[in-house]
Amino acid sequence: MKKIYYILIFLSIPILLQFCNSNTNNNADIIIKNGTVVTVDSVGNIFYSGAVVIKDDKIIDLGNTDEMLKKYSAETVIDAKNKIVMPGLVNSHTHIAMTIFRGLADDIKLQDWLHNYIFPVEAEFVNPETVKIGSQLAMIEMLHSGTTTFNDMYFFEDEVAKAAKEIGIRAFLCESLINFKTPNSKTPEEGIKYIKMLADKYKNDNLITVALSVHSPYTCSSELIVKAKKFADNNNLFYQIHVAETKWEFDTIMSQYNLTPVEYLDSLGVLDDKTIAAHCVWLTENDIKILAERKVGIAHNPECNMKISSGVAPIPELLLAGAEVGLGTDGVASNNNLNMFEEMHTMSLLHKLNKMNPIVVPAETIVRVGTIGSANVLGMANQIGSLEIGKKADIIIIDVNKANTTPIFNVYSTIVYSLSGTDVNDVIINGEIIMRNKNILSIKEDDVIDNVNEIADKIKLKHNR
Amino acid sequence: MKKIYYILIFLSIPILLQFCNSNTNNNADIIIKNGTVVTVDSVGNIFYSGAVVIKDDKIIDLGNTDEMLKKYSAETVIDAKNKIVMPGLVNSHTHIAMTIFRGLADDIKLQDWLHNYIFPVEAEFVNPETVKIGSQLAMIEMLHSGTTTFNDMYFFEDEVAKAAKEIGIRAFLCESLINFKTPNSKTPEEGIKYIKMLADKYKNDNLITVALSVHSPYTCSSELIVKAKKFADNNNLFYQIHVAETKWEFDTIMSQYNLTPVEYLDSLGVLDDKTIAAHCVWLTENDIKILAERKVGIAHNPECNMKISSGVAPIPELLLAGAEVGLGTDGVASNNNLNMFEEMHTMSLLHKLNKMNPIVVPAETIVRVGTIGSANVLGMANQIGSLEIGKKADIIIIDVNKANTTPIFNVYSTIVYSLSGTDVNDVIINGEIIMRNKNILSIKEDDVIDNVNEIADKIKLKHNR
Repeated sequence: MKKIYYILIFLSIPILLQFCNSNTNNNADIIIKNGTVVTVDSVGNIFYSGAVVIKDDKIIDLGNTDEMLKKYSAETVIDAKNKIVMPGLVNSHTHIAMTIFRGLADDIKLQDWLHNYIFPVEAEFVNPETVKIGSQLAMIEMLHSGTTTFNDMYFFEDEVAKAAKEIGIRAFLCESLINFKTPNSKTPEEGIKYIKMLADKYKNDNLITVALSVHSPYTCSSELIVKAKKFADNNNLFYQIHVAETKWEFDTIMSQYNLTPVEYLDSLGVLDDKTIAAHCVWLTENDIKILAERKVGIAHNPECNMKISSGVAPIPELLLAGAEVGLGTDGVASNNNLNMFEEMHTMSLLHKLNKMNPIVVPAETIVRVGTIGSANVLGMANQIGSLEIGKKADIIIIDVNKANTTPIFNVYSTIVYSLSGTDVNDVIINGEIIMRNKNILSIKEDDVIDNVNEIADKIKLKHNR
Repeated sequence: MKKIYYILIFLSIPILLQFCNSNTNNNADIIIKNGTVVTVDSVGNIFYSGAVVIKDDKIIDLGNTDEMLKKYSAETVIDAKNKIVMPGLVNSHTHIAMTIFRGLADDIKLQDWLHNYIFPVEAEFVNPETVKIGSQLAMIEMLHSGTTTFNDMYFFEDEVAKAAKEIGIRAFLCESLINFKTPNSKTPEEGIKYIKMLADKYKNDNLITVALSVHSPYTCSSELIVKAKKFADNNNLFYQIHVAETKWEFDTIMSQYNLTPVEYLDSLGVLDDKTIAAHCVWLTENDIKILAERKVGIAHNPECNMKISSGVAPIPELLLAGAEVGLGTDGVASNNNLNMFEEMHTMSLLHKLNKMNPIVVPAETIVRVGTIGSANVLGMANQIGSLEIGKKADIIIIDVNKANTTPIFNVYSTIVYSLSGTDVNDVIINGEIIMRNKNILSIKEDDVIDNVNEIADKIKLKHNR
């Protein structure tokens, strides 16, 4: 019998060795070390000399650097000394291909902007090729300013998907339906077929999530609004709509249905936790209650709402009511950039002024809205929006060894009030290094800039600008 | 007699040759070529393939590149292809040494901020050494974001002057008087002596302008307000004061004198074209009329006014009344950065929202306020604030061959709505190249950052932050 014991012990040695080894020298793919790691987890953990450990597309561990370096080794080690390491920002509402129209028409009224500028140039210049090029430019801009996931609402979303996969950025793509001809479809039915094709094509894709959108309560019929929601539900897709953006919209829907835009959509049964409502500026107390109860995702776009004078969304009230709030830039034709750091800064200033109270939406709340809040709006909070074990490795590293970020008394203050988006140094998405030392590795930036300038030259020639 | 004519002709040949030469190949010091030159002159000239010619500290010519290169040569030629060339921004109100307190206390009420945070740390940590270091950091930050002149209101301004001259930035320096002990003087009388010393020391300096400030109508007695103005007038100095920043101040002065803060100061006879009024948030129609008639310079600080919930200055009304309006950042303890591009952007969004009208303060107006408007407030519009022949060569060159500034349909839109301050590539002040390809040539940035971090560590240690 003793012999058998010895043999068993002998045989178990390699297994024991492997076990010990796994505790002292686990192999990872990337270790980010020595950074100020702002996790944005549920209790707001910050590791001041922190490390994040990545294997494949996921975060497998994080904590103090010394501890992590004892447990793990990796071929790629990024030193984040004097840098902030945080989850990539999530842009919960934009129209990215509209970069080709950046600055085309500013300082004018909304109806003038839409009917005399945007609709005519869209009809003429929006096609698969321009959407691809405009989207590439937008992705470059977003990466440089720390956005790793965006929610796009536009046309030809297959082109956006292809560009996103080439560049390596995470994309939530809503092909847009409306009750008139779009650049991509003669009828909403054609649009729905296109969305079905996209949903099948990108099922289980590691970067692309397909969804759909209907434009707004005032441009889409009740029938289309309901039909599109049923299609979305049947295909397990998220559903996005512009809601209560302007007083004009509020008054129009009110006079038509004797219901607020939110009440009207609720009466159609389309408000639930898989619906994203962009803007939500003109809300009643009852609307806030409905949005919170239905767990609708709210995409707040402060800069666009200010620039085209739409008004101020009641974000402090929505947060208080427990509503799900994320942050977006809207399209650059009305912003005019995709810089989410700037958007966070403006969001904070706007609500402090609007409430005449400097305490509302403090810096940490703003950071939460721009990361995990937006992720939640997109139904992706279990995958992205914070640095936690098991989540996707969507991480940005920001250089704060600069005059404008010195000194640091409170890291959330630095992020919201002092940083420029352009201080972002490195971007990792899905475990891949996409930008390193401000260089995007997956696309030639200058070529894209040249391509967009060519499109712009054609627009200028045609429209005498 | 004929002989004399021949001799005279012979003698005049060299002079004639020199004259011809000067028209075809004048020597300059620096030529900036191939840029989009935004002059901000009185008619808003833009040269799309433009050049600026600099000799000594001045702009001696500007226009189309081909024409300028025919007329001038220079040892230093800067190619500004794909770049915007414009006057350096002028920050018309700030407290630059307060960079050492950046982010110390955010998201709290003004009185809490002042009495529990700022006043105690100022009493303890503001001295000649920290003012010098904090000012150096601020100057680095300002240069990187395109500011070439700033109006500082603080203490130990001699230290700021020395730092400014070392770095090569233009400074308008207001030593601050108040009715209690300051870090620099036990009494206002001591402060006035110090200002007299500064005014003598920097008389006719090529970078430094000495002025004075009294803190506000609520912290200074009528006697001090009047006495300081008389001293300023006798010494030909500008005079700065915080005016009508908060509703609390408006109500306090109103209850004390039955006059608005502006009416009160007017009754003391201190409002004229050599007075700078910072903030001017709480104004009546009559106040606006007084400020415009007296040609008082108004320093608008939109981000600070939003962040500490002071309110919205009636800038569109002031501009309409013909008042002189400039732009400022205020100190970073309440902003939290010195980025004038960001400030221009916020200024535009704020007033469009406040008036619910996207037409107000269009991009070109904003650029004028941030340059020639601020220069006017400081009484320096004949020297700086626009690119014109005979003016000082204070020029910034901004890289716009970037995703966030592509395409360009309207260059003012690009400057106000799309740019980041950090896109500034080169800075020339007084004809000297101070920053080239984002490197400041006159100071080691990392050393200054380290020095500020040391001060911050002491503050943290003492105040448990």
